[in-house]
Amino acid sequence: MDRILLGHGSGGKLMHELIRNHFSPAFGNSGSGDSAIVNVPTNRIAYTTDSYVVTPLFFPGGNIGELAVNGTVNDLAVSGADPLFLTAGFVIEEGFLLSDLKKIVSSMSAAASKAGVQIVAGDTKVVNKGKADGIFINTSGIGVLPAGRDIAASNIKPGDAVIVSNDLGSHGVSVIAERNGLTFDPPIVSDTRALNSLVKTMYQASPDVRFMRDPTRGGLATTLKEVALESGFCIRIRDKDLPIPAGVKGACSLLGLDPLFVANEGVLIAIVARSAADAVVASMKNHEDGGHAAIIGEVEEGPAKTVLLETNIGGSRVIDMLQGEQLPRIC
Amino acid sequence: MDRILLGHGSGGKLMHELIRNHFSPAFGNSGSGDSAIVNVPTNRIAYTTDSYVVTPLFFPGGNIGELAVNGTVNDLAVSGADPLFLTAGFVIEEGFLLSDLKKIVSSMSAAASKAGVQIVAGDTKVVNKGKADGIFINTSGIGVLPAGRDIAASNIKPGDAVIVSNDLGSHGVSVIAERNGLTFDPPIVSDTRALNSLVKTMYQASPDVRFMRDPTRGGLATTLKEVALESGFCIRIRDKDLPIPAGVKGACSLLGLDPLFVANEGVLIAIVARSAADAVVASMKNHEDGGHAAIIGEVEEGPAKTVLLETNIGGSRVIDMLQGEQLPRIC
Repeated sequence: MDRILLGHGSGGKLMHELIRNHFSPAFGNSGSGDSAIVNVPTNRIAYTTDSYVVTPLFFPGGNIGELAVNGTVNDLAVSGADPLFLTAGFVIEEGFLLSDLKKIVSSMSAAASKAGVQIVAGDTKVVNKGKADGIFINTSGIGVLPAGRDIAASNIKPGDAVIVSNDLGSHGVSVIAERNGLTFDPPIVSDTRALNSLVKTMYQASPDVRFMRDPTRGGLATTLKEVALESGFCIRIRDKDLPIPAGVKGACSLLGLDPLFVANEGVLIAIVARSAADAVVASMKNHEDGGHAAIIGEVEEGPAKTVLLETNIGGSRVIDMLQGEQLPRIC
Repeated sequence: MDRILLGHGSGGKLMHELIRNHFSPAFGNSGSGDSAIVNVPTNRIAYTTDSYVVTPLFFPGGNIGELAVNGTVNDLAVSGADPLFLTAGFVIEEGFLLSDLKKIVSSMSAAASKAGVQIVAGDTKVVNKGKADGIFINTSGIGVLPAGRDIAASNIKPGDAVIVSNDLGSHGVSVIAERNGLTFDPPIVSDTRALNSLVKTMYQASPDVRFMRDPTRGGLATTLKEVALESGFCIRIRDKDLPIPAGVKGACSLLGLDPLFVANEGVLIAIVARSAADAVVASMKNHEDGGHAAIIGEVEEGPAKTVLLETNIGGSRVIDMLQGEQLPRIC
């Protein structure tokens, strides 16, 4: 048997075999939808969920499985938490290749191991052919918040520095290029990676990290606009300081995309006290996951709830959220 | 706008509007995939996930939304935990009616409130028309384990009583009937309900609850076979003591189903010390969610890993797990 059957999701023998042969070896849990019992070394935990519907399932630099692990790890990490445990819920289309499932599951296992998290519970449902698109994966995650750790847009103050941890745009461009059968030379590969180790390094450099978020769907522009709305302040950024690789710029111009709105999967923005910014950026540049970290702008008093981009030709323009859809199913 | 667009899942303005207008009022959280920060009053927690792909989305007695809340609450409850927090991840097909989404979300909100849990984090993805089947919902859940609480198949002993909390088969039959355009008089409605309050009552009657599980996909037979396999013992049950309503029996015979394999969504099986069984059953019968609780059998030394059904005509037959699929997409 090399394909998923409806019976693999019906709770009976086939499902038990699927779990025993494929999920348990990778994750070390029953995968049957039962609760895992876990110990959390604090009473204050971060808790999140994300579903992944990226198409295609395999793209340069990654696949839906590691995306589902890294994405949820990152949601926890940018909330200031140390990620500990994940769950994984699979919705699989009848006829899906078991060999593809195996690749996805094993890259999830590797990503979890690299990020230092455990996938402790799982669930599998199978839907009829034509009623899903290969596989959708939901992951939820739990992390513990170190004492005093507090990440919120309401913490930021005028004068704070806005930092981006790495090159922008690679994930979105790699997926769209794959979807359209385009290849670039040098290749543009997804930046999917876990950011919890980088966050730890940043806090070691300074405790004055006021806010973090990962600019995934909607890209940097949408994320900064959210911060402007939530804080009430203005975020002013400079085009010349944005770490956008030449390849991504070229691909975006070819594909008609604005890199500011393109999804990232291994980048965080951080807003830190100005006095701490240089130390934080230096620590990030020394970390393998923050090599191209840069201060890209500042928080200003006003205009309220606004993101301004200083362009390279002088002057500035207002940046809004992504309108409608630029890149559906990017994660 | 009365239908879901691809842009509702792209992280931008439309998604923010969807969250603001539909999810936040119901759940009181941002629904944007960010982490929720929650306090758990113990270090030992139960953690689970389940995806829901039931078709049709609306069926007699419930819909996919309350199923997704109650199902995950029940996974936690039968692990012995007090359910506290849930997450909800939505994968929605482009073109899905906003009015249906509203019904689903509001029934989730009502179910959560009835079960005493909070939906603290959410996520929404939209896939192209024809790439999903209306809506799929994943819920994960966290509960706290009271000190000393220990539910495991390895705890059960020969002589223990096997209890079922209520009538069997209603959920599966209600969904299959709806799928086939059949109605019964009196109607057969899904038993979807949260079981955490019933579990609390059982523990008040006796601490000697050794094992619980909710017989959902695969039904009572598959669940008991799992217990037999995990414990190594024999589970002997009596046909005459199974609480199967006449309507369910009739419908099953019409539909060619075996009620032992039909999914339940508001029933648990419990294995308790024989000395505690009468008190536990009495407490369940006094609870609105366990009205037809009954002792249906016993744990025996052998034959090992076997489920035996004593039939009404004398003799007994071996019960195995569901083979392949009897009722796909029942939850």
